[in-house]
Amino acid sequence: MKLEGHIGLAHGAGGPAMRALIAELLSDGEGEFPLDDGAVIPLGDRFLVVTTDSHVISPRFFPGGDIGRLSVAGTVNDLAVMGATEPLALTCAIVVEEGFELEELARIQTSIRATCREAGTRVVTGDTKVMGRGEVDGLVVNTTGLGFAERVVPTAGLRPGDRIVVSGTVGDHGLAILAVRNDLHLDADLRSDVAPLNGLVRAALEAGGAGVAALTDPTRGGLSGALHEMAAGSGVGIVIEDGVVPLSDAVRAAGELLGIDPLQVANEGKVVLGVRPEVSEVVLAALRAHPLGRDAAVVGTATADQVGRVILDTGFGRRLLTELDGEIAPRIC
Amino acid sequence: MKLEGHIGLAHGAGGPAMRALIAELLSDGEGEFPLDDGAVIPLGDRFLVVTTDSHVISPRFFPGGDIGRLSVAGTVNDLAVMGATEPLALTCAIVVEEGFELEELARIQTSIRATCREAGTRVVTGDTKVMGRGEVDGLVVNTTGLGFAERVVPTAGLRPGDRIVVSGTVGDHGLAILAVRNDLHLDADLRSDVAPLNGLVRAALEAGGAGVAALTDPTRGGLSGALHEMAAGSGVGIVIEDGVVPLSDAVRAAGELLGIDPLQVANEGKVVLGVRPEVSEVVLAALRAHPLGRDAAVVGTATADQVGRVILDTGFGRRLLTELDGEIAPRIC
Repeated sequence: MKLEGHIGLAHGAGGPAMRALIAELLSDGEGEFPLDDGAVIPLGDRFLVVTTDSHVISPRFFPGGDIGRLSVAGTVNDLAVMGATEPLALTCAIVVEEGFELEELARIQTSIRATCREAGTRVVTGDTKVMGRGEVDGLVVNTTGLGFAERVVPTAGLRPGDRIVVSGTVGDHGLAILAVRNDLHLDADLRSDVAPLNGLVRAALEAGGAGVAALTDPTRGGLSGALHEMAAGSGVGIVIEDGVVPLSDAVRAAGELLGIDPLQVANEGKVVLGVRPEVSEVVLAALRAHPLGRDAAVVGTATADQVGRVILDTGFGRRLLTELDGEIAPRIC
Repeated sequence: MKLEGHIGLAHGAGGPAMRALIAELLSDGEGEFPLDDGAVIPLGDRFLVVTTDSHVISPRFFPGGDIGRLSVAGTVNDLAVMGATEPLALTCAIVVEEGFELEELARIQTSIRATCREAGTRVVTGDTKVMGRGEVDGLVVNTTGLGFAERVVPTAGLRPGDRIVVSGTVGDHGLAILAVRNDLHLDADLRSDVAPLNGLVRAALEAGGAGVAALTDPTRGGLSGALHEMAAGSGVGIVIEDGVVPLSDAVRAAGELLGIDPLQVANEGKVVLGVRPEVSEVVLAALRAHPLGRDAAVVGTATADQVGRVILDTGFGRRLLTELDGEIAPRIC
């Protein structure tokens, strides 16, 4: 990508435009910049995994969570899907608008603490910067996480025949945010799935060992974005069976009302696993035995052909699942 | 501090209000939250040091540097003053306003790369979030840094009799920014001192060993803020000899024009050391032998009385140096 023109919302959307921008901006110009969920630093016989994320979600409080829970869970999950399921420490740096209510900041802090406890980690250092009124919309929270992995699990470790497993229903986070913003009134309860998944991932890795060959969390870009990244990076195609991807009734209803495909919007409490066929059943069982993985399902298979593509098999025919490069909605995380 | 009311500019000013806010917000409620330049995680016989900072400086390009150089140097320096003078890796997360020019982002990235090379480190992972027009003023850059220290040097390791050493002229960064904002036209060249100091700190530690007992960088709050933190944390007083603190002519002139004490404004390329008297000469010589420490000077002494206070000895009498709790200027770093 040539760095000309201006930043558009797609540059923050988790798709190809963002990946190209980060690669171009952050590469040190000497060798490839590793674009996985985090970076890996070998230390002795272990790997230190490092990941960073800024959170700008609007609204800051939403059904199922808030910006504090989102920040901690997002960072813990990025570590977990690299194989670092015991997060060593987080940092937390906030940029806050002058005039922001301290009581709200305290509520967010309470949520940060509670989510850290849930994940078995803690914030070890922080920073506060204040911008003037109108210079930032409320609050930006950056969390950076550290953890050790015995084995680093790549996003793109698939080979043909591997099963694609999703740990539960998809689309909940993105559609919960969009429903609030659009003032949708649904019969069913639509809540973000935001949760720290390190315990769930640990259970899957303990059950499947090296048979868990690929792992990522389908955040920005949704399940579709995650599958495209897995397929392209692994040099395989992915065929998904239509109708087997878990969807809640509320997500289905909200998706239809808003005209949005639940496979294209962010999740904050789900993982996607690429699993060797011989361990797919034990991994699925381990996921389902965990409270955060009850709805886990095998949704598809990696193929040798159609490299880089994600195909939806409807039973009557096949169609390509597209990867969005635009932004369905900004500030979703 | 009770979390009531609203965020004010003082909460981002590096003084007591900010320290109290961070302590209150980020403490896990179980034991003291360590408020040094970074956090320390023991790993085997070494210490992993972690530090995080968000940068919101305005303007983004200024005499002597830019937000990219500032971000890298600030984080490298926070590691260095903890004793981690070989930064292992940085993360870099940006929040950018829709419509921001990609060409400017590329210039900032070039500066980030160059400053990383200067410090012997690199950015290993990143994140990009886009906020809509008017939702953030241009660009926020968060950098988090990791490094190992054999020995962690505290901010507050002073005991009575220790010499206070400053690595060069003070006030350059803060007054350079304020001069630009106030459109001051000075005869002398007024530039920010922003620079990565890990090489300079390494030289001082190699020369003084454990005799370098306290170390910090006088960023927000300036030299005065740093000395107050050192004095209060160490349970000593500090007497500074007026007239021996190095000041450039340009800083002196700008300070007088703006009515601002150069000891109260941010530095981004200086360190303050507390040194045992028996090694103060070798440490001073080591600092002066380094290009970034040519103007280093012994400026004062730690005392057993006047605990927590910083006293300016004018030769004719003594007066207390006050620690500002307000903000001389927001978005200085």
